[in-house]
Amino acid sequence: MTSCGVLISEVGPRDGLQSVARTMPTAAKRAWISALHAAGLREIEVGSFVPARLLPQMADGAEVVRHALGLPGLTVMALVPNQRGAEAALAAGVHKLTIPVSASAAHSLANVRKTREQMVDELRGIVALRNERAPQVRIEAGLSTAFGCTIQGAVAEDEVVWLAEQVVAAGVDEAGLSDTTGMANPAQVRRLFQRVRAAIGDKTGAAHLHNTRGLGLANCLAAYDVGVRTFDASQGGLGGCPYAPGASGNVVTEDLVFMFEAMGIATGVDLHKMMLARQALQAGLPGEPVYGMTPQAGLTRGFAYADGRRPATEALLDAGAGAA
Amino acid sequence: MTSCGVLISEVGPRDGLQSVARTMPTAAKRAWISALHAAGLREIEVGSFVPARLLPQMADGAEVVRHALGLPGLTVMALVPNQRGAEAALAAGVHKLTIPVSASAAHSLANVRKTREQMVDELRGIVALRNERAPQVRIEAGLSTAFGCTIQGAVAEDEVVWLAEQVVAAGVDEAGLSDTTGMANPAQVRRLFQRVRAAIGDKTGAAHLHNTRGLGLANCLAAYDVGVRTFDASQGGLGGCPYAPGASGNVVTEDLVFMFEAMGIATGVDLHKMMLARQALQAGLPGEPVYGMTPQAGLTRGFAYADGRRPATEALLDAGAGAA
Repeated sequence: MTSCGVLISEVGPRDGLQSVARTMPTAAKRAWISALHAAGLREIEVGSFVPARLLPQMADGAEVVRHALGLPGLTVMALVPNQRGAEAALAAGVHKLTIPVSASAAHSLANVRKTREQMVDELRGIVALRNERAPQVRIEAGLSTAFGCTIQGAVAEDEVVWLAEQVVAAGVDEAGLSDTTGMANPAQVRRLFQRVRAAIGDKTGAAHLHNTRGLGLANCLAAYDVGVRTFDASQGGLGGCPYAPGASGNVVTEDLVFMFEAMGIATGVDLHKMMLARQALQAGLPGEPVYGMTPQAGLTRGFAYADGRRPATEALLDAGAGAA
Repeated sequence: MTSCGVLISEVGPRDGLQSVARTMPTAAKRAWISALHAAGLREIEVGSFVPARLLPQMADGAEVVRHALGLPGLTVMALVPNQRGAEAALAAGVHKLTIPVSASAAHSLANVRKTREQMVDELRGIVALRNERAPQVRIEAGLSTAFGCTIQGAVAEDEVVWLAEQVVAAGVDEAGLSDTTGMANPAQVRRLFQRVRAAIGDKTGAAHLHNTRGLGLANCLAAYDVGVRTFDASQGGLGGCPYAPGASGNVVTEDLVFMFEAMGIATGVDLHKMMLARQALQAGLPGEPVYGMTPQAGLTRGFAYADGRRPATEALLDAGAGAA
């Protein structure tokens, strides 16, 4: 039953925590990241290197990276918006950089006060820096608002494909597509990933999809169908309440893992251990709402992981882990 | 952009109301069903014909059917568990009967105290009655627990295919597959619908999928991919809170309509008018929780229906409709 597996890239410690006004203490971040690693996650976006005055929640990036580097087999990722951030992240020793580049011209100007062309120049500088200081580090460009933009509305698919080509020409190792605003639908996900793959081949990166209108898992399925094998997700959907108006909730890692494992597609993640990570998240941010339907409903009767393992119990909440 | 359309079969007035302890007053049911029809729904399961002592919420079935028969272009469906119910439903004048038949042997005995073979006999009797009294009425068998059972766990796909063949041999017009317990995954949905279609061809009926673990829309997409064109759904997810442990929440009609329309697949349903129906539902059951993420988030910026129509506003909650 086991098919080709997928890589779940956990973005909660960056994308999630960045969206919460409170700051999770550094020790709690370390404990949470360790618990996510213990649950089987092998790529975690642990922080972002941005000025602390803009995002005080991320001020301890270097310390968090140092901890994560001690976890065996883990790819430690960080988000950087520019060269200065890249310098700090490379100095901290990350394995992979991710840089958001807006596909929407209006969003790019509003968000980083740069045109898309200027962001591609920025990328070129980051690639040069990486080549000089840490050639083993991988660089991903995340094409944000690839499926639509709350400012300008539709984003032309031709422009997304053009931008994917530009960032690859600038030297990044992969370009992923992000549904930053929760506007994607499965037909569009299939079409756009196919077009981008036709343009940049195996430099096509992760699908970063949101659950704003409940389509998160359907969109992940659509992306899987056209060959995507890396999926960003956030434990408990942290990062924008998925049930509130205007929310930009990330796909819930627990639900995504359940879907793939139930389909016979290995993720390497253990859902009971994910509940321990959920406890660690909640211990670090008491009272913060976390989401997920599989954590609530539990596993299905007779559930087996893609590799044939059977859980000791189908209950998840009873496994001693808290949930909203 | 418009592809082949789909038929959304609204089950809220039966499946939803049957799961709520309180009884919606008959006048409120009439108003809700009219509002659903006004929103463009063209098949509605309006009630079930079961003994009133078992389900007092459904005691006004004949009166509700009489009202629904006055709505132009509407296929009026009712659930019947046995011949006695079928007699009452046919007398009331329904256009279509739906009869649940458990694919799980254990569930069949627990639920109706009959073996699956005895239920097939019951179906044969209902078909004979239909042929005699109202030959224009269509009969659907809904194969419940087709994707798994909370009592026995896995249900063998061979047995589901066998049962589909049996019910067709008994004379029903179509056999649908129901994920009664919210255990389906997209790979299984594709595989089982394909196997059933290989066995009974165009007598393959609706997909009735639940959102218990958040996979409702992904499973609908999977069913669509293998040719299913009729989908059961419930306004506001009525019928088992989809966010509670052990819940059996139906797929939310509003979210399903959004997904298909965004994909360019016409449903004929208007989402602003669905919010008026949501108001009617809430007026009839004050305080009852209703769900749906598209109602909360609104339509996407620049949204157009599959037929090209543009909504006057992308907001849904601001359109004067209430929601949880």
